[in-house]
Amino acid sequence: MSTHTVTAQSCANIAFIKYWGNRDHELRIPSNGSISMNLGGLYTHTRVTFDPGLRCDELVLDGQIQAGAPLERVSAMLDRVRRLAGLAYNASVQSSNNFPMGVGIASSASAFAALSLAASRAADLALDEAGLSRLARTGSGSACRSVPGGFVEWRAGNRHEDSYAYSLAPPEHWALVDCVAIVSREHKSTGSSEGHPLAYTSPFQTARVDDAPRRLGICRQAILDRDFDALADIVELDNNLMHGVIMTSSPRILYWQPATLTVMHAVTRWRTEGLPVCYTIDAGPNVHVICRAPFASEVAERLKTLPGIEAILTATPGGPAQIINED
Amino acid sequence: MSTHTVTAQSCANIAFIKYWGNRDHELRIPSNGSISMNLGGLYTHTRVTFDPGLRCDELVLDGQIQAGAPLERVSAMLDRVRRLAGLAYNASVQSSNNFPMGVGIASSASAFAALSLAASRAADLALDEAGLSRLARTGSGSACRSVPGGFVEWRAGNRHEDSYAYSLAPPEHWALVDCVAIVSREHKSTGSSEGHPLAYTSPFQTARVDDAPRRLGICRQAILDRDFDALADIVELDNNLMHGVIMTSSPRILYWQPATLTVMHAVTRWRTEGLPVCYTIDAGPNVHVICRAPFASEVAERLKTLPGIEAILTATPGGPAQIINED
Repeated sequence: MSTHTVTAQSCANIAFIKYWGNRDHELRIPSNGSISMNLGGLYTHTRVTFDPGLRCDELVLDGQIQAGAPLERVSAMLDRVRRLAGLAYNASVQSSNNFPMGVGIASSASAFAALSLAASRAADLALDEAGLSRLARTGSGSACRSVPGGFVEWRAGNRHEDSYAYSLAPPEHWALVDCVAIVSREHKSTGSSEGHPLAYTSPFQTARVDDAPRRLGICRQAILDRDFDALADIVELDNNLMHGVIMTSSPRILYWQPATLTVMHAVTRWRTEGLPVCYTIDAGPNVHVICRAPFASEVAERLKTLPGIEAILTATPGGPAQIINED
Repeated sequence: MSTHTVTAQSCANIAFIKYWGNRDHELRIPSNGSISMNLGGLYTHTRVTFDPGLRCDELVLDGQIQAGAPLERVSAMLDRVRRLAGLAYNASVQSSNNFPMGVGIASSASAFAALSLAASRAADLALDEAGLSRLARTGSGSACRSVPGGFVEWRAGNRHEDSYAYSLAPPEHWALVDCVAIVSREHKSTGSSEGHPLAYTSPFQTARVDDAPRRLGICRQAILDRDFDALADIVELDNNLMHGVIMTSSPRILYWQPATLTVMHAVTRWRTEGLPVCYTIDAGPNVHVICRAPFASEVAERLKTLPGIEAILTATPGGPAQIINED
């Protein structure tokens, strides 16, 4: 069995139509489809080596040796790869992000997309994009959307085989910028993995899911047509629907912080003033302020003047997960 | 036809289970029943005189002569009273609140409850409590809850006759305090009268209404049992359900301000520390922090230390609408 060391890179992504809740928690088959944009420049680098000399899997994350839950989640993914490849070796995994974890930028998405690619290639598995997307999904649902490039749709599907993401349009299709207003670097109290199983405890989740095909259709068309006004309206509605579910689940979760609302109100006001911007928020307090590229520096400058904003990260549409080194 | 001058007083109320959306906008037959507590000490005084010498209705609100929409809404109520009483005279109405208007304390509730009582008595109509509550409802839905005393339930009903409020328990039944954290004295951008017709543009309103009988049952029982934990849980859930509808209607409305969230997070934290408190927010940015009376000064002190809080108003359970002067 030949194995080697592979390093892969994958972007974070920001959902325009959100993933929240599963119809199958084990396989991470989502309650509804979702649409996202890869965030170029906000990425995870992951290096994987299967090594017959290791007594167990090893995980180093941003320079820190990991044990417990993070290692178990990575080992579960490695087990899937080992099963597919008929491989028995343990693996050494080194992973690093160039953005802060657990603050609402989907670090688990880029991490599991990069891990899927690096581990499957290190095990000499030849997976196509759909196969890689499916594999990434089993580690973290939204990771399946960080496998293809640019603007991406994850078709919910009904079983493992038909639940994966594909590119709606390449990164160069539409010059959008995500100005991420970082509100807090505190680690969030409830991760999205723990949040998904709560979705159906909200009286709103069924209504949110039932309406999803309509929203997906509008969002898909807005991207294909490069229609910013249509995108802005459906992105903000979908965001508020997801957080409406989250804040009415049992237990209730409030990811928004005061500065989150400051940005939401400011963005709403700026748009009425003619600036092409909209907001969306993942499972954390940060606000992703999406705008057309010619207005990005204006938007970033304005965001900096708001109280409670610690930093602004910007990202343009990013490419697919890719191998950056093999040896 | 004998008429005279009557002054009535009515409390504001805070809804524990919220009214949002109508099945009949004209008559203000609500989509779901609601439960509230009258706010003793936060009241409207309204004086009404029917006068054959007046060429049209006159309204003075907090010392300011009114025209346009506020006058029309009062005249519509006076028309109903004139029709019931067979009276043709115009009226002079003087009304004043002892709390700021349009910031999320239901000034229209206390105003229309007081107007209904003063106007009907000035026209020599003898309405019982249910009749007065029905009449108040036609001016402002939640006004029907400011007619009976203490803890009040508004049965939604299906038509004018069966949609009115009654007392679940008198004010002395349970020593609760509402510490109202005033976040902003700016007049809100969308009044609740304009908000109600938007309710069904939210994908969530039907689910919220369908679940209402369950919430009403829990809240009613929590009040009868004086069970604060049960009350806190259902009050906060119901609040988040209403705001979930509001922020996903078309157009989207965000009544919460940054300091609103500051208080919501603080109250959640304080409750986990053992303090019997919960939050609820009407159609505005202020937070009503409900607590058991022995903890009210502690809660008020803590609220004062939070950033963005302009003032704290406190209220204990209030009595019914009442006549305070006739001549």
